Amino acid sequence: MPEQKLVKNAAGRMVPTEINGREAIPYKGVAKHRPTGTKAAPALSTVMDYPDSGDKTVPDIKAALKAAGLKDGMTVSTHHHLRNGDFVANAVFDAAAELGVKDLRWFPSASFPCHAPIIEHMKNGVVHHIEGSMNGPLGRYCTEGNMRGMGVLRSHGGRYRAVQDGDVHIDIAVIAGPTADPFGNANGLTGPAACGLIGFALADSEYADKVIVVTDNLIDFPCVPWQIQGNNVDIVTTMPAIGDASKIVSGTTQITKSPDRLRIAEMTARFVKETGIMHDGFSFQGGAGGTSLSFAIFLMEMMKEEGIKARFVRGGSTQYLTQMLEEGLTDYILDGQTFDLEGVRSMRENPGHVNTSPFTSYNYHGKGNFATMLDCVVLGATEVDVNFNANVVTHSDGYLLHGIGGWQNCLFSKCTILPIPAFRDRIPVIVDEVTTLVGPGELIDVIVTERGIAINPLREDLLAAVAGSDLPIRTIEEIKAEVDELVGGAPEKPNLGEKVVAAIEWVDGTVIDSVRQVLPKE
Amino acid sequence: MPEQKLVKNAAGRMVPTEINGREAIPYKGVAKHRPTGTKAAPALSTVMDYPDSGDKTVPDIKAALKAAGLKDGMTVSTHHHLRNGDFVANAVFDAAAELGVKDLRWFPSASFPCHAPIIEHMKNGVVHHIEGSMNGPLGRYCTEGNMRGMGVLRSHGGRYRAVQDGDVHIDIAVIAGPTADPFGNANGLTGPAACGLIGFALADSEYADKVIVVTDNLIDFPCVPWQIQGNNVDIVTTMPAIGDASKIVSGTTQITKSPDRLRIAEMTARFVKETGIMHDGFSFQGGAGGTSLSFAIFLMEMMKEEGIKARFVRGGSTQYLTQMLEEGLTDYILDGQTFDLEGVRSMRENPGHVNTSPFTSYNYHGKGNFATMLDCVVLGATEVDVNFNANVVTHSDGYLLHGIGGWQNCLFSKCTILPIPAFRDRIPVIVDEVTTLVGPGELIDVIVTERGIAINPLREDLLAAVAGSDLPIRTIEEIKAEVDELVGGAPEKPNLGEKVVAAIEWVDGTVIDSVRQVLPKE
Repeated sequence: MPEQKLVKNAAGRMVPTEINGREAIPYKGVAKHRPTGTKAAPALSTVMDYPDSGDKTVPDIKAALKAAGLKDGMTVSTHHHLRNGDFVANAVFDAAAELGVKDLRWFPSASFPCHAPIIEHMKNGVVHHIEGSMNGPLGRYCTEGNMRGMGVLRSHGGRYRAVQDGDVHIDIAVIAGPTADPFGNANGLTGPAACGLIGFALADSEYADKVIVVTDNLIDFPCVPWQIQGNNVDIVTTMPAIGDASKIVSGTTQITKSPDRLRIAEMTARFVKETGIMHDGFSFQGGAGGTSLSFAIFLMEMMKEEGIKARFVRGGSTQYLTQMLEEGLTDYILDGQTFDLEGVRSMRENPGHVNTSPFTSYNYHGKGNFATMLDCVVLGATEVDVNFNANVVTHSDGYLLHGIGGWQNCLFSKCTILPIPAFRDRIPVIVDEVTTLVGPGELIDVIVTERGIAINPLREDLLAAVAGSDLPIRTIEEIKAEVDELVGGAPEKPNLGEKVVAAIEWVDGTVIDSVRQVLPKE
Repeated sequence: MPEQKLVKNAAGRMVPTEINGREAIPYKGVAKHRPTGTKAAPALSTVMDYPDSGDKTVPDIKAALKAAGLKDGMTVSTHHHLRNGDFVANAVFDAAAELGVKDLRWFPSASFPCHAPIIEHMKNGVVHHIEGSMNGPLGRYCTEGNMRGMGVLRSHGGRYRAVQDGDVHIDIAVIAGPTADPFGNANGLTGPAACGLIGFALADSEYADKVIVVTDNLIDFPCVPWQIQGNNVDIVTTMPAIGDASKIVSGTTQITKSPDRLRIAEMTARFVKETGIMHDGFSFQGGAGGTSLSFAIFLMEMMKEEGIKARFVRGGSTQYLTQMLEEGLTDYILDGQTFDLEGVRSMRENPGHVNTSPFTSYNYHGKGNFATMLDCVVLGATEVDVNFNANVVTHSDGYLLHGIGGWQNCLFSKCTILPIPAFRDRIPVIVDEVTTLVGPGELIDVIVTERGIAINPLREDLLAAVAGSDLPIRTIEEIKAEVDELVGGAPEKPNLGEKVVAAIEWVDGTVIDSVRQVLPKE
């Protein structure tokens, strides 16, 4: 790898000026970077090149990749709606290896521990590097400096934007469709690998040169609804199974049993209620983590007590959001993905579920998006600093082990709340400086810990709203000092090398931070 | 207007080499023109320029056009889902006139008699010319040579293609939304002007520089389903009424009462049955004309008798297609538009209705489209020649009075049938040469008249399929000779001038024919 040139960006972070041969723009601040130019323009197709019957099927993934013209150095994308049960991405690179192709850029919407076999394909040269969120072993492999190219982490909205803006040109998109027809229409609602939605593949289907749909549930045209439109699809193929259903969505998502986490969840709900964020017609978004689920349950009870109804909640759908919808506590669930089987069932049955995509929800280079309209979002973090800057991708040991998901995009809500434990495994979560900057503090409004609630001083309105309440409002410095005292200060610093192994993009495509190689302890 | 240079195209028709300042490609034959280059690339937007609240409303159309930056010479588009009850297009050009803007190109998906006031705007200079199907008075105005620019008629699919391919750049799209939210999400399912679908505006929403949604039924976000996505919309505004509901869709669509037309409809259904086109899992498309409706009713009875079920039928939905769906005679209706109130009701209530668009159904520069998959389509025509070439836009008197609709696109079905009377008002419909060539004979398979059924000799398979049946199979020449004898030959030729007043595009964007100015009788 040639020497990396770094510059200091507007957040004071050193970031590369070039990423995998492409010029990179350093982060300029929130709402400072104005894009120029036009959207990517896919090549014109003609129906002359597609069968009149609408039947685009070929026998298998290998035949599909061959038909799509797979060549050395191409960019191949996949989506992660099958989560840790995905069989497709590994099959794609196994087939690429059989075809003798090298140096591919893998552009997943996210990768999971189930994709660990792709480490072998990086070692044998089939895959050059990964651009996409890396959960678990692939992140570890990257952090230790083993990848030939630089990792690039983008939010869900940032990934859509990067494809739309032409930052990333996808040569071949491989889209796992739990149900599909021979024309390429596909959805995630039915079939043995039903996962609810497959909207993370939307940009791929719209902008890739060649689009392959792979399914294990091929039905007669038309497959409706078409979450992926066959008119964007070149080739359809089948596999005996595209995923392990038991790992795609869990049967039930677990609420937290930890008394501290429950206390945090309840305080978060109380905060939302007492500040008046919870009002008739309001909206919120929570995640699938145990604390977030518990928050939703507490909030649901408070809504019932007060007779309050939401206009919409944003999924990933879970059994608890589904319950809210079915009990009439919200008009709609706007789904981005689906986290449990109850959510998948409800999507099939309930017209109050509305499919969204990274385009509608999160694309920063669109004519508005949904994220700014949310009255509040409840998110996690691995670290938060005293200026409310936060990290979701690395741990204090320097390891890149988590994806960004929609996290950065959600920060644009009217009130962003991070319910987090003040420390984990005796490691403080509130720090002087985050290991990796993923979200700027000015967009993070509230931290809720078991030791109190800290409101960002920029949000004088929220401080005023809780004046007189008996919520345990404290400064973030107070909470930090208490925790540092308790655990004996910050943990040992990791031994970081010079080499940048991954870049973290902000929602507008600028580079907000770098992840450095972790070296063995000296 | 500068002198027009014409060349003979592959169909032997003289067509202009330049249309309104843009180079035109003469028709090359069916499936002969291969597009090069890329799709149009809209400018990048940023959410920085849109309100965080998602509220994009301005007080009225005039304010909306001003905010959109309306200027002399721009292209302004509208859609025709409100049909002859549309109030929006007239309001747009009235507002443009008030703003003092001149020389606009109006790019409607179609225009109707209700748009006759726009003739005044062509006279006063606000509108330069119309590119889009012209039904009635605007077509007459154009045919008489009064328009400053050349009319361009495109099929529904051709219009999508033209926008997608960048042939037509829309500066400002004005989209009538029977229901919409302040973010710009819109649909046609509810509200006083409910018209079912608004998919003809899809290309406009995707590719126009500025997109305005105008509604008379503004609801809280989210307006679902979003047939038009607010993420493509810049400005939202309201009018007291966007249309006259009684003229948007008729309460009931009338089946024909003419004994001849009923006979034609029944013969068409029998043909479909006896050739085996009507089989389990088949598909068909019919229109909203009286003969077409009667055909659907006859076919429905035959399907019931034989216990046959369709996989899908293509709308415009009518009460009869709706009945087929509700009686379980088809799995799906794939709707492109909606022709009556029963269709609108059923779209709201029945998940077996699937929204389609000119992109999915008809775009010739896509990765396939639905049109080629239909087992049969039943269409009208004003004239057919002995080589099965057909006309749907002009009459034998030379007047351009009808739009193309999806007609050209539908010709790609596996069996295209034109049930037509052999003569109308003593004017033969089967002619030696059509006044205007809109559909090449090689794509038109069957003519059904009250005097017999003519099968295109190219379709030996169909000729074989009816061998031995008692259907009145004849040659097209026989039928023509009989009619000519009866009515005393072809009607007097119109007095056509040299000037080309309109060009007819083929589905691939090439020019298949010209419409010449009609001069007063000498």
